[in-house]
Amino acid sequence: MYELGVVYRNIVRTERNLADALSRYGTATVHEAMGRVGLMQPYMRSIYAGAQVSGTVVTVLMHPGDNWMMHVVAEQIQPGDIVVAAITAECTDGYFGDLLATSFKARGARALVIDAGVRDVKTLTEMPFPVWSKCISAKGTIKATPGSVNIPVVCAGALVNPGDVIVADDDGVVCVPRALAAKTLEAAAAREANEGAKRAKFAAGILGLDMYGMREPLAKAGLKYID
Amino acid sequence: MYELGVVYRNIVRTERNLADALSRYGTATVHEAMGRVGLMQPYMRSIYAGAQVSGTVVTVLMHPGDNWMMHVVAEQIQPGDIVVAAITAECTDGYFGDLLATSFKARGARALVIDAGVRDVKTLTEMPFPVWSKCISAKGTIKATPGSVNIPVVCAGALVNPGDVIVADDDGVVCVPRALAAKTLEAAAAREANEGAKRAKFAAGILGLDMYGMREPLAKAGLKYID
Amino acid sequence: MYELGVVYRNIVRTERNLADALSRYGTATVHEAMGRVGLMQPYMRSIYAGAQVSGTVVTVLMHPGDNWMMHVVAEQIQPGDIVVAAITAECTDGYFGDLLATSFKARGARALVIDAGVRDVKTLTEMPFPVWSKCISAKGTIKATPGSVNIPVVCAGALVNPGDVIVADDDGVVCVPRALAAKTLEAAAAREANEGAKRAKFAAGILGLDMYGMREPLAKAGLKYID
Amino acid sequence: MYELGVVYRNIVRTERNLADALSRYGTATVHEAMGRVGLMQPYMRSIYAGAQVSGTVVTVLMHPGDNWMMHVVAEQIQPGDIVVAAITAECTDGYFGDLLATSFKARGARALVIDAGVRDVKTLTEMPFPVWSKCISAKGTIKATPGSVNIPVVCAGALVNPGDVIVADDDGVVCVPRALAAKTLEAAAAREANEGAKRAKFAAGILGLDMYGMREPLAKAGLKYID
Amino acid sequence: MYELGVVYRNIVRTERNLADALSRYGTATVHEAMGRVGLMQPYMRSIYAGAQVSGTVVTVLMHPGDNWMMHVVAEQIQPGDIVVAAITAECTDGYFGDLLATSFKARGARALVIDAGVRDVKTLTEMPFPVWSKCISAKGTIKATPGSVNIPVVCAGALVNPGDVIVADDDGVVCVPRALAAKTLEAAAAREANEGAKRAKFAAGILGLDMYGMREPLAKAGLKYID
Amino acid sequence: MYELGVVYRNIVRTERNLADALSRYGTATVHEAMGRVGLMQPYMRSIYAGAQVSGTVVTVLMHPGDNWMMHVVAEQIQPGDIVVAAITAECTDGYFGDLLATSFKARGARALVIDAGVRDVKTLTEMPFPVWSKCISAKGTIKATPGSVNIPVVCAGALVNPGDVIVADDDGVVCVPRALAAKTLEAAAAREANEGAKRAKFAAGILGLDMYGMREPLAKAGLKYID
Repeated sequence: MYELGVVYRNIVRTERNLADALSRYGTATVHEAMGRVGLMQPYMRSIYAGAQVSGTVVTVLMHPGDNWMMHVVAEQIQPGDIVVAAITAECTDGYFGDLLATSFKARGARALVIDAGVRDVKTLTEMPFPVWSKCISAKGTIKATPGSVNIPVVCAGALVNPGDVIVADDDGVVCVPRALAAKTLEAAAAREANEGAKRAKFAAGILGLDMYGMREPLAKAGLKYID
Repeated sequence: MYELGVVYRNIVRTERNLADALSRYGTATVHEAMGRVGLMQPYMRSIYAGAQVSGTVVTVLMHPGDNWMMHVVAEQIQPGDIVVAAITAECTDGYFGDLLATSFKARGARALVIDAGVRDVKTLTEMPFPVWSKCISAKGTIKATPGSVNIPVVCAGALVNPGDVIVADDDGVVCVPRALAAKTLEAAAAREANEGAKRAKFAAGILGLDMYGMREPLAKAGLKYID
Repeated sequence: MYELGVVYRNIVRTERNLADALSRYGTATVHEAMGRVGLMQPYMRSIYAGAQVSGTVVTVLMHPGDNWMMHVVAEQIQPGDIVVAAITAECTDGYFGDLLATSFKARGARALVIDAGVRDVKTLTEMPFPVWSKCISAKGTIKATPGSVNIPVVCAGALVNPGDVIVADDDGVVCVPRALAAKTLEAAAAREANEGAKRAKFAAGILGLDMYGMREPLAKAGLKYID
Repeated sequence: MYELGVVYRNIVRTERNLADALSRYGTATVHEAMGRVGLMQPYMRSIYAGAQVSGTVVTVLMHPGDNWMMHVVAEQIQPGDIVVAAITAECTDGYFGDLLATSFKARGARALVIDAGVRDVKTLTEMPFPVWSKCISAKGTIKATPGSVNIPVVCAGALVNPGDVIVADDDGVVCVPRALAAKTLEAAAAREANEGAKRAKFAAGILGLDMYGMREPLAKAGLKYID
Repeated sequence: MYELGVVYRNIVRTERNLADALSRYGTATVHEAMGRVGLMQPYMRSIYAGAQVSGTVVTVLMHPGDNWMMHVVAEQIQPGDIVVAAITAECTDGYFGDLLATSFKARGARALVIDAGVRDVKTLTEMPFPVWSKCISAKGTIKATPGSVNIPVVCAGALVNPGDVIVADDDGVVCVPRALAAKTLEAAAAREANEGAKRAKFAAGILGLDMYGMREPLAKAGLKYID
Repeated sequence: MYELGVVYRNIVRTERNLADALSRYGTATVHEAMGRVGLMQPYMRSIYAGAQVSGTVVTVLMHPGDNWMMHVVAEQIQPGDIVVAAITAECTDGYFGDLLATSFKARGARALVIDAGVRDVKTLTEMPFPVWSKCISAKGTIKATPGSVNIPVVCAGALVNPGDVIVADDDGVVCVPRALAAKTLEAAAAREANEGAKRAKFAAGILGLDMYGMREPLAKAGLKYID
C-alpha cells in the first residue's frame, strides 16, 4: 500500500487446485468458513448476473483517473489469475474496457475486481469476461503516473495480498489469504455437506426453531409469545 | 416498534381475496389509488426483474447483524403471507439466503421485503423466491438477541402493520393498510379501467395536452410559447 | 436554465444523418472522441440491458415532484428526438410511465434521459422504450407549476442544449453539442477503425506495453521491476 | 400516514412535566432507557452545536417541494411543542427559514425536526431556534397541495405520533411514545444515577473489564490473549 | 464545457456594484428572486460557519486528481472575483490548500467554490479565506493534464459562465447570470423590503394563514379540520 | 484481519519521539511526504474543529452493533496511543461515548479513530477527547461476540497495523507505517521548510506559474491563451 512505482514479478500463488476448488462454494459459504471476515463491501457488483469464479490474485494500485498500470499488470498475469485493482482515492472512472479485457483474457485472467468503474460492459458480457466493480462509467482515463503491481492493496475495504484467492459471485467478493486457503476449503466443504440435508428438512416444513433447537435459548433470552 | 422480545401469534390479516387481487395492479397504480402515500423508499429493489406479488404481512424486527428472529417469524407464516423485515439501525448484512427461503416457501410465504441485505441471490432467482431488499451482501449474521414478530415496524420509510397488504413489483414496494384494502382495490381498478382507452389514444398520437384539457390551465399558470 | 414558463417551438436540430450515425459508436468511444468531456454522471443507468441509441435533443425542465411539463414537451417531439429531462432540485419521484412512453413513442421519440425516477419499467421494457434515469420509483407526481421546454438544462452534471445529440448505452449517457457533432463522428470513426487491429493483437497475446511502446516512458516515470 | 388533507386539532399531549424532564438526559441515555429503539437515522443533524431540547410532538406531513402545511401546523402549536415534519418522498428542499421560525417561536415551539432541508441557518442560529434536519438548502418550495397535521408520520425511519415526546441533542433525535414517557424517564434517571460513580472509577484507571466483570464471559466466548 | 486546453483572458464581468450588492441578500433570497433556479446542489458546504460573499466569476475546469490549472486560473483573477472550479468527473481529492489560498487572496479573490475537496481547512479558516466545497480531504493531486479557464462549466449541478455572479453563504451557493444580475438585485431588494414587516407580525403571533390569506385556498384545495 | 478472538499484548510501537513529532505537520503534509498514500477516506471527520494529534496505534476489530472489545482494547492502551477501530461490516451505530472516553483518557489514549459512529459528542468535546469517526449516532450496541485487538485492520480504506503512527487533523486521518515513520518525518519537515518562503512569495503576488516554472510545460502540454 505504501510502495509506489514498483512491480513485483515473483509472487507466491496459492496452490492451483486449492484456488480452483474454492469456486465451487459461493462467497456466502466461503466467508462463513473463514469466520465471517474477508468480504469486500457490498457495493461491489458483478456487471452481469450468474458469474461465479475463483482464482489467484495479482494486484494493481493506480491513481484516480489513471489506468496506465493496467497494461503493466497484464504482463504479470498467469493463467488462472484474477486481477484486483485498487485506487489511491475514491474514483468512479472507467479504467477497463473490451480491449484490455481481450488482453487480460489472452494472458489467462479469469476476472477483474476493481474498486472503481469499468466500461464496454455490453461487450464484456458477450465475451464473457467477468468483472466486479464499484460502478459502470464510460469516463476514460489518462496514462501519466506509475502505481504499483503485486503489492498488498485495500480493495473495497478488504486487504488483498498477491497470491491470495478471490472468490466472487452474485453475492459479492471475498478474499481468502493464501495461508488460510486449505483450511477454508475444508471448512466450506463441511458447511456445504450439511446444507443438502438441511434444505430437505426445510422443504418438508420443519422449522429452524426445531432443527437448530432454538426454542429454549430464545426463551432464556427473554422471548415471549402473546396470543 | 417499541416492544422487543415479543411474538404476537394472532394477527388479523386482510381478507385473502382482497390481498390477492391487489397484485393485478402494479405498485404505481396502487400507490396512486391510495392518494400517493404508502411507498417504501426507492432503494428497495427486487433481486430479479419481473417479480410481481401481493400478500398479507407478517412483520419481524431484528437487530443489526442478527437474524435470529428470521427463524421465529418462519413459524408465524401462513400461506399467502409476505414477510416484512425491519432492522433497529442501518445495516447491509445478508440476513436471508436459500435455506431460509426454502423454509419460508414451505410455510407458504410469497416473498420477503427487507430493509437490509440478502444473499444466495442466484439460488433465490432459480427457485424462484421473490425478495425486495436494500442491497445484496454475502455477509453473515449472528443469533444473539431477540427482536419481535408481528409488531408495527418502519421498513424503508413506510409504516407496516401485521395483517396489512404488501404489493411489490419492479417499481418498488407499497404497503396498503388493512382498513384501506377494499377501498384501494376499488380505486386501483377504476384507474386501470381508464388506462386502456388512454393508451390507445396516446398510441394514436393524441396529446395529453388535448386529452386532459391542459392547454388552458397551463396558459393561466403563465406558460408562454415562443417561435 | 433560468427561464421558467417558456416553450421554444423552433430549435435547430443536429443534422439527422449525423445524429443517427453516432449511435454506431458507444458512449465510451464518443466521449473519448470529444476529448473526454460531455458525460453525464455514472448514476444514470438504463432501465434494461442492451439499449443503444442516439438522437436529437429536446429538453424539459421540471420542478421536484411535478411532471406537468412532460405533456408539454410531448408536443415538441419530432421523429428521431430524445427527451432530456432535468429537475430544479434533487428528486427521486417517478415522473414517467407507460402512458407517457406510449405518447412519446407515437410522436417519434427514441428515448428518455431523466435526472429523476421513472416507473412502469416492466412495461417500458416490453414495449421497448429505452430510458436512462437516476432511479426507479413508483412515486407519482402532481401537475401544478409550469417549467420550460427547449431551454439549455443541466442533466446529471452535463450541459445539454436543445438540438444537441445524445448517445446512450449500457455505459452511460454522453451529450454531443450540435457544433461538434460532425467532428466527433469523424473522430469516433477514426478511433473505432483502429480498434479491430488492436483487439486482434491483444487476442494474440501481444501486450499493450509493447503495442503502445510504454516500456520506456514507464521507466522514465520511475517504474521499477523487482524479482 | 395515510390520511391526506386533514388537520387534527385535538391531540393528547404527554404530560408537560414528563416531556420537560426528559431533556435532562441526552438521546443516548433515553434511547437506551427505551431498550435501544426509537432513534431517527443518524443523518438527522442539528444545525448548530450544543442544542438540547425535549417537547411534545405536533406532526406535519408534506409533499416534496411543497411547504404549505408549515403555516397550517403553526396554528396547532402550543407552548412546549416540537414540530416533526415528514415528507411523502425523499426531498432536500429548504422547507423552513427565519420567518417561519419567528412564527413557530411566537407560538411557543421549542424546535423543528424535519426529514428534509432548511435555510436561513445563520439567522436560526442567532435567534436561536433549534432545528434537526436532513440537510441545509436554500432551495425554496411552493404552496400547491395540502398534506396533513397531527396524523402519525414516519420521520427519518422513526414512527412519530402526535403527543409523543421528542428528545434531541448533538447525538441525534429520539421519539418517546406518550405511553412510555413515564417509564422511560424513570429508566433514564436510573441509568444516569449510575454514571457518575462509573465515570469516577474509569477516571481513576479502573477498567471496564473489571468493573463489569467481563473477563470470565470473554474467556468463555473464546477470547485468547497472546504474548 | 467542451474546450480543453484553453484560457480565455478577456471576459466580461458583471458590473462591480451589482456583483457586490448581491452579497447583502442571502442565497435563499437571491434564489427566490431568480424564480427558484440557479442553486448548486446542497452538498456544497462552507468550510466554516458564517461566511457570506458575492463576487464575479472566473471558472476553471480540471481533470480528476489534477490541480495544475489552479495556478493558471490564479493569473486570471481580478480583485472581487470568485473562482468556480469544476472537475470532468466525480472526485473528492483536495485540490486547494493554504498556499494557493494565499496566492488567490493576494490576487484579490474573495472565495473559492469547488465541486471536489480542499485541505488545510484550519489555516483557511484562520486566514480567513472562504471556500464552498463538496468535501474536505488531505488527498493531494498531480499536475499532468491541462484543463481550461473561463469557459462555461457545470459546478454541482449549476451552469456557471465566466463573468456571472456567485452569491454564497451558510445556506449554499447560487449563480446569477450576468444578464440577470440587475433584475435579480432589484427583485431581491423588493423581497427583503417586505421581510421586516412580516417578521414583526410573525413575532407578534400573527399566523401565516391569516397574513397570507391562506385559509380559503386551503379549504378549496380540500383541507379539513377535525376536532 | 482474519484472526477473530485474539488479543496481542506485545506490539512494537513506533519510537515515541517519532510518533510525537509527526503531529507538528498536518495530514496533508504527511500524506504528501509518504508519496500520496495512506489516507483514510474523506468521510472520516473530527467531531469538533481544531483537533490535531499523532500517536502510536493499537487496533481493535469489532462486529456490527457490538462494542464489547472496546473494553478489551482499553487495557492494551499505553500513554501516547491512539485507538483505531474497524468493524467487520458497514455500521453506523454509536460504539463509544463519554464513559469509555474517560477510561481511554485515564489509560493515556490521545484519540479514537473509528469507522462507525460515536455518541455523547457534546461531552467528548468538553473533555476534550478527540475522535475521528464516520458518523455520530446515539444508537447503542450490545456485548455478545469477541473480535480482536492488535491485529492488522482496514479502517476507512486504509491498512493499519498495531504500532503504526496515526496523524489526524481537520483534513482527515493518515496512517504512517512504523518502518516509514523516520523517513516520513524527515520528508515532512523538508516540505514544511519550503512552505514559509513560498507563502511569502504568494502573499507578495508572485504566481505559481512563475515560481514553479510552469509556463513552458503547460505550453508544451498544449495550453493556449485566447484574448
